[in-house]
Amino acid sequence: MMSNNKLYPLKDGERLDELHIKEYKIIQDPNKFCFGIDAVLLSDYAKVYTNEKVVDLGTGTGIIPILLEAKTDGELFIGLEIQNEMVDMATRSVKFNNLESKIKIIEGDIKEASKIFDKNTIDVVTSNPPYMNSKNGLISKNENVAIARHELLCNLEDIIRESSALLKQKGRFYMIHRPFRLAQIFSLLSKYKLEAKRMRFVHPFIDKEPNMVLLECIKGGGEMIKIEPPLIVYNDINVYSDEIYKIYGY
Amino acid sequence: MMSNNKLYPLKDGERLDELHIKEYKIIQDPNKFCFGIDAVLLSDYAKVYTNEKVVDLGTGTGIIPILLEAKTDGELFIGLEIQNEMVDMATRSVKFNNLESKIKIIEGDIKEASKIFDKNTIDVVTSNPPYMNSKNGLISKNENVAIARHELLCNLEDIIRESSALLKQKGRFYMIHRPFRLAQIFSLLSKYKLEAKRMRFVHPFIDKEPNMVLLECIKGGGEMIKIEPPLIVYNDINVYSDEIYKIYGY
Repeated sequence: MMSNNKLYPLKDGERLDELHIKEYKIIQDPNKFCFGIDAVLLSDYAKVYTNEKVVDLGTGTGIIPILLEAKTDGELFIGLEIQNEMVDMATRSVKFNNLESKIKIIEGDIKEASKIFDKNTIDVVTSNPPYMNSKNGLISKNENVAIARHELLCNLEDIIRESSALLKQKGRFYMIHRPFRLAQIFSLLSKYKLEAKRMRFVHPFIDKEPNMVLLECIKGGGEMIKIEPPLIVYNDINVYSDEIYKIYGY
Repeated sequence: MMSNNKLYPLKDGERLDELHIKEYKIIQDPNKFCFGIDAVLLSDYAKVYTNEKVVDLGTGTGIIPILLEAKTDGELFIGLEIQNEMVDMATRSVKFNNLESKIKIIEGDIKEASKIFDKNTIDVVTSNPPYMNSKNGLISKNENVAIARHELLCNLEDIIRESSALLKQKGRFYMIHRPFRLAQIFSLLSKYKLEAKRMRFVHPFIDKEPNMVLLECIKGGGEMIKIEPPLIVYNDINVYSDEIYKIYGY
């Protein structure tokens, strides 16, 4: 640990967090943006098969490529990120875990993704995008947080349009989002020929409304969706459900 | 009871079923089509306010107008039904309950609803439509069952298009359907300017996939949907949940 820390020293304010899988760690800065349960749930929901190539749009700390590399047999995991300081941090996390051959962090704009990568070549696209549009919620004064939470640099349509453009026919798109935007999500998916095939709502408690929704879509897929059993986060106040413990690797 | 039966005698094969609300009863014929839990759930999900006018598209036995009359303060409940023998049966149920001033059963084709009624005049449209299109499921040899279950005489687009045409601006559309058709449902709602505002999945058991979905849409509404806590039908094999007992009026 110490020697790794020396090879890839943490910058001021950063910390090294355990990922509870393959002894991987990730660099985060609590003054910027730390990944949440949504990234962990999305990484668990997404399916990546042998030899597949994955692009994560808006990768932030790189949490999704790193978890997917640990959990799946995919060949290459590319994280696209617009914020230079997040690219730097994610790149150092990849190096720290010796994953340079499997994970590439690339600086770039989601809105240009299909110019940065070849169209119709990607097997899987993942995204844990900003949930809020200009009409919802207070915008954080912290720039990193604001960009991660609000559609300041890209919006839902950009993400769905570019994902569709990157994917091969029958390629898969995985996203986590807020249920309140579902009507718009379905409308945009349909516009860009991504057919929702699986959907799972995440409820904080069994008797509460869902606060997140997981989606699997297939480019050019047929018109039949499977709604899965609810994913319940807490059995009781501060007590995770067994499924959440399992997803977190405890 | 006996005297009522004499006034409106049952036809061969018909029976008179209790509705557990206001001592209302309904005529059904098990050889034709009996209402299911879906009609009961939809009647409970729909909101009808004082003086509102409601149209139920494809009313069958008239179960939805009869339950809505019992549960709400609406002014007029109209059931549109294409099958002459179902119109006859529903009309006799309305008379049996002395509801002729509140409920009208009209023979007609859903596809023509906006010619039968004035456009932009209805406060609430409900529908428990056939769930299956030509691609899904075996078509029953029983004609009444086949028409109720399969899109033989009208399809989802007919129902959504006509509902939108009948409704006033900000009028409400309530439907129960199968979750596997949700992507198509959202796409058609969007096409006909019905914005999904509330959605609730009905799960047979808490850890099972939903097999029904309840929707509230507003004509010309804004783009934000609320997904409600799951509605669980059974706590255990053959043991309804408390909520289902309450909805059924036991």
